[in-house]
Amino acid sequence: MKLVMKKELERICNVALEKQGYSKEDAARISEVLIATDMFGIHSHGTKNLYMYIEKMKQGGIDIKANPEFIVEGPAFAVLDAKDCIGMKGTRIAIDKAVELAKKTGVAYVGVKNSCHFGAGTFYVAEMAKQGMFGMIMSNVDPNMAVPGGKGMTLGNNPIAYAFPRKGQHPITFDIALSVVAALKINKAKMYHQEIPDSWMVDPDGIPTTNPQYYQEGGALLPMGGHKGYGFSLLVDALSGFMTSGNTCKDIESWCFNLPNKNRVSHAIICIDISKVNPDGHFEDIEEDYLQYILNSPKAKGTDHLMVPGQREWEKYDKDEANGVRIPEDVADSLLKLADSINEKIDWRDIDE
Amino acid sequence: MKLVMKKELERICNVALEKQGYSKEDAARISEVLIATDMFGIHSHGTKNLYMYIEKMKQGGIDIKANPEFIVEGPAFAVLDAKDCIGMKGTRIAIDKAVELAKKTGVAYVGVKNSCHFGAGTFYVAEMAKQGMFGMIMSNVDPNMAVPGGKGMTLGNNPIAYAFPRKGQHPITFDIALSVVAALKINKAKMYHQEIPDSWMVDPDGIPTTNPQYYQEGGALLPMGGHKGYGFSLLVDALSGFMTSGNTCKDIESWCFNLPNKNRVSHAIICIDISKVNPDGHFEDIEEDYLQYILNSPKAKGTDHLMVPGQREWEKYDKDEANGVRIPEDVADSLLKLADSINEKIDWRDIDE
Repeated sequence: MKLVMKKELERICNVALEKQGYSKEDAARISEVLIATDMFGIHSHGTKNLYMYIEKMKQGGIDIKANPEFIVEGPAFAVLDAKDCIGMKGTRIAIDKAVELAKKTGVAYVGVKNSCHFGAGTFYVAEMAKQGMFGMIMSNVDPNMAVPGGKGMTLGNNPIAYAFPRKGQHPITFDIALSVVAALKINKAKMYHQEIPDSWMVDPDGIPTTNPQYYQEGGALLPMGGHKGYGFSLLVDALSGFMTSGNTCKDIESWCFNLPNKNRVSHAIICIDISKVNPDGHFEDIEEDYLQYILNSPKAKGTDHLMVPGQREWEKYDKDEANGVRIPEDVADSLLKLADSINEKIDWRDIDE
Repeated sequence: MKLVMKKELERICNVALEKQGYSKEDAARISEVLIATDMFGIHSHGTKNLYMYIEKMKQGGIDIKANPEFIVEGPAFAVLDAKDCIGMKGTRIAIDKAVELAKKTGVAYVGVKNSCHFGAGTFYVAEMAKQGMFGMIMSNVDPNMAVPGGKGMTLGNNPIAYAFPRKGQHPITFDIALSVVAALKINKAKMYHQEIPDSWMVDPDGIPTTNPQYYQEGGALLPMGGHKGYGFSLLVDALSGFMTSGNTCKDIESWCFNLPNKNRVSHAIICIDISKVNPDGHFEDIEEDYLQYILNSPKAKGTDHLMVPGQREWEKYDKDEANGVRIPEDVADSLLKLADSINEKIDWRDIDE
């Protein structure tokens, strides 16, 4: 584990992006997403990926010069053509638009097409919540789940995230993908030759298996709740891909396994201005009452305390904000490659925790 | 199983409602929801419940004379105070408003407070989809699920339904509750003293159990995907209860176990006018392309064909539309009680299927 000051992480990421040709402002806005994501502890989606995003730029899979453009606009909606820019850039433009529209009409939908992997949804929905909004974001991804009754990778485990403000505290943030577990967990089991529960994936015949070796060898992840996760996956493709005339899962390749190719994922954002829809201002009181009811509900044998969505993420975020960002070795390795590639040294230190 | 003509079901339901004091128009709109729900095969939420709704009216839990009123209105949003009217009446008013608003601004949110059990979401979202909309509806309910790490019934398995149009076919309709399985399944296992998979519920200590006898004896349903279902349950309470300053799960009692009490559930509707957000008109082509990709994807060993959400429901609907409505014995028993209470005879016949 490494400990690195936020400012130092910003410096490295900004320099790396500016060297690719990004403006100071663009670089800062992209870095901010990635660094916050590490602070949330979602290390698979944070600064670790910047080296690969830049590789993707170099190989033609991300267009550095792209200027995303709104191709549809109306009172409570907009569609952004992200034109293959880096995911964080287009997605932040879309978020800003969603908030702007919701402040006028109360509710907004913003779709994004021709985007690239936006990282973790938490950052974006938290940005909306900080401005008093209920915010939701979803994205399609390359197929990795089986259809119930099917075999092979057909559906995307399309992530869905939402957030809303909480009185005197960080927003409630929720951020999941629709598979029973993340591919990461199966790859780990694969590496250590461990068995997995038979609810996680199917083998090449579409039969539930405890053998993780089938992953990326004809197997597929299972959707959470079977047909329920399937329906949510289709929902995401409808609101992102169908609605924007963008790509659906079926036409999407992994952003990181196919660096020269455009990723062209589609996103959907829903934003509601709480102060407009709830003009009495009772939202946060009712919310707090409900959250306290949950937190104080009876605990199962062996459980110390219950949590609200996003609580663990914000606890890490606050600690990192105060003491520096804690990053695991795989992220450090990738940052080191990044720093080397731009002839920079990273000022950080090893810590035990 | 009984076979009854749709017109005959309408006659019985309409007479029963009109005898309570509903106008011809109100009665027809309420009956339509319940009958369609039986035609979809969602018999737990259809005409079977009309006898109990009327009992609830008689015992003071539903206000027959209530006139739902919009208490908040804006360009793309509205909040309806349903004033304890029967769920189908208020919810249809809210749906109509959502479509009206979406036609103007492209996107609409409509919340409903002080409502009663609306039945199944499928009818309402299908109504929106038939008018070219993407429609979504959700409701909170009385608590029946444990919080991950908790014990006892704390969260509602808050249903979520959505629909969107499909070219030349019935809309895609999706309608689920957030528990791993419906309480109905556990009650069935309880009745027949069968074991259940340990992923369905927890015992009174909050430990996963295979013994259904704990249901309503200190046990609780488990949310689908653990923390994922928990987060979706909170989402529904936020968009319905917090947003409307209505009740959250914690204050809601079962509509049918507590007939004299008001149910006071909250709902949320999201409606998007597809023709506005996707003015090119490509939504349904991209959709069909994607659905065909799913339907033609490889099948697991032992599976004949794959399905899209709502397919089974619409197949029953069409067959019932042509040949008469097929209803199981428990629904027939309830309808018989209803008919007796209004001195009517039902013209139906026994069938084998």
